[in-house]
This record gives sequence, C-alpha cells and structure tokens, in this order.
Amino acid sequence: MKTLIVYTHPNHQSLNDGFLQAVIRGCQENARIEDIEVLDLYEEKFDPALVFNEEKLRRNMHVDPELAKYREQIMRADKLVFIYPIWWGRPPAMLLGYIDRVFVSGFAYREGEGLLKGKTVVCVSSMKGPSLYPLLWLNNAHKILMRRALFRFVGIRKVKFFEFGSMESPKGKQENKLNKVYRYFQSVAR
Amino acid sequence: MKTLIVYTHPNHQSLNDGFLQAVIRGCQENARIEDIEVLDLYEEKFDPALVFNEEKLRRNMHVDPELAKYREQIMRADKLVFIYPIWWGRPPAMLLGYIDRVFVSGFAYREGEGLLKGKTVVCVSSMKGPSLYPLLWLNNAHKILMRRALFRFVGIRKVKFFEFGSMESPKGKQENKLNKVYRYFQSVAR
Repeated sequence: MKTLIVYTHPNHQSLNDGFLQAVIRGCQENARIEDIEVLDLYEEKFDPALVFNEEKLRRNMHVDPELAKYREQIMRADKLVFIYPIWWGRPPAMLLGYIDRVFVSGFAYREGEGLLKGKTVVCVSSMKGPSLYPLLWLNNAHKILMRRALFRFVGIRKVKFFEFGSMESPKGKQENKLNKVYRYFQSVAR
Repeated sequence: MKTLIVYTHPNHQSLNDGFLQAVIRGCQENARIEDIEVLDLYEEKFDPALVFNEEKLRRNMHVDPELAKYREQIMRADKLVFIYPIWWGRPPAMLLGYIDRVFVSGFAYREGEGLLKGKTVVCVSSMKGPSLYPLLWLNNAHKILMRRALFRFVGIRKVKFFEFGSMESPKGKQENKLNKVYRYFQSVAR
C-alpha cells in the first residue's frame, strides 16, 4: 500500500508536525505500507492560485506540465493522508488551492465520473475550538465538503476523519490524540 | 455608504465579470452609495498563502505592513461585497487565502469579540451545478461557513447571499440573474 501524506502547515513547531510524525511512525511500523511519500505544501512553496484564461485554457489544466509531479504522486498512491489545521471552519487556502489546481477535470474526474476510484483517504485536522463546535454550530460543514463535494466526486468513498479540538488547551490531551493517530496507521489495512 | 467589492475570478471573460458589472452599475445608480472600490484579487496577484513561524509571528499578522492596504480598504467600507465562483462547494483558494491573511486576530476579532461590527456583507456566488445542490446534498455548507464560521465571528450579522446555479447551461437564465443583482444594489438601503 503506497501512501502519500499531504502536509499543510506553515510552521513545523506546531502540533500539526506532531501529527505528521505520528502518521509517519505508524506507517513505518505497518507491514502493509511499502512506500511513504510526504508532500509539504508550504516547504514546496506551492502556488495555491488556480489561473485560467484565454491563453491558459481550463480544459488543459490536467496536462499542465508544472503540475505533473503532483498528479504522479496521487496516481502512485493507494492512500492519501491530509494533515492540516482548521481555519475559519475549513482547511487553509494553501491546501484548497492544491485541490483547485491538481484535482481538475480530465485528471480527477471526467463528465461526472470520478477517476480516482479505489484510493482511500484519511484527514487529520485540528482546531483551537472545542471538537463539538463543527457538529453543533457548523452542520459538519468541513467534513461534508471534503467527503461529498470533493472525494465522492472524484470517486473516493472510503474517507476517515480525525478532527481534534482544543488544540491549544492544556486540557487538550494532546498525547492521547497523537497516539490515536499513530495506532491507527500502525494497523490500518486499507 | 462606502462599498468595497472583492472580486475573485481568474478570467474576466466569464459570467463573474457580468456580476461585477451588474454590482457596479447598481451601486452607481444608488444615491446612498457614495464610494465604490474594487479589489480584484487575481489582477492584484494577491498571495493567498498565510505564513507564520518563529520569525514571522502569528500574533503580529494584524500589523503586517504588506497587508496594510487591504486592512484599510475593509476599515473604510460600510459594505463588503464578495463575487466569486463556487469550486468544490466553496469559494476559490484565492479568496479564502485573502481571508486567512487579512481577517486575523487583532484586526477582525480579538478574544472572541468581532471587531468589524456594523458592516454588512453581500456574497454573489455562482456554480455550474443546479442551485439546489448545496442545500440538498451539502447541508448548505458554503453559506454556513461564510455566515457562522467567518462573518458572525468578526461581528458581521447582516449577510445576504445570491447563490446562482446552472451557470453554464443555456437554460440558466443568466440575464435574469444579472438583473436581480443589479436591481438589488440599485436600491439597497444598508
């Protein structure tokens, strides 16, 4: 099982880096996972602005040579892992721009048919507020957008979420959260 | 009433430009609106990636000199109008990055208190799919995130949405949609 980790946080001195290390460590101890690749969008200085116009046609985005590397990473992977903070109830613009630019028609879907079938996704997100806030106050908007508007559309039905709250609180039980993620990847079968 | 229009679309040969023109025309004919400013994020080549780290502290973002112009535009405005397409059920990364970078602690909110009280917002968004799709399939995620996770948090309670579907369909009644927006701005009181 080949795994691509897409990491989105500007600062490695953050709990998100803890999640990244927990995922990597879990994967390394999982005999089913043979290959682990990390894409650090900030380190990569990825440009999140999707541009199309008369010269740069939208219908040619799926063969844009500048993005070939990112498409190949996705094609190679059986499992996509996204690690990111929640800002304003949703992922950072950096990650959403990666999706805007890479998950385009002709690559991720074509005429309503998802082209990334068979892959699985894990999202590890964390926020400052309490973990019940998105459910009780935001109608679960973040998960719904990721699961239904994005992944199901590109053919991915197996999506697992770890959505952690109270990340800056001393009562946040950070160690338990890191361990939960680590143990999941240590034994995940698909 | 001073109005700031934040326009987010890479291509002016699009229906979004039609909405921009309709908003401007309506505003110009509205005696209550004395000042119209347009911020075209793509033309501006706005960098949507929020960066913070040991050198660039998150708590100093609200005085980042690079973004002073954008903060001043918002402070001057009584009304903020956002015009954008819906991609993957939500606004383009470009607009969300503007929010990530400009609507920061110390400027847009402080210790849970919204600092942009009294301003009003209009969102004019459009999508390829049918207009009932976000309501029936996405739990209204886009509007919920804008209204509750963003605007209410910064103190803005008056938010009006125009969310148009079927934008690429010949049956989409584009003229009616443009007219609806135009007439709204022609007579809006607050």
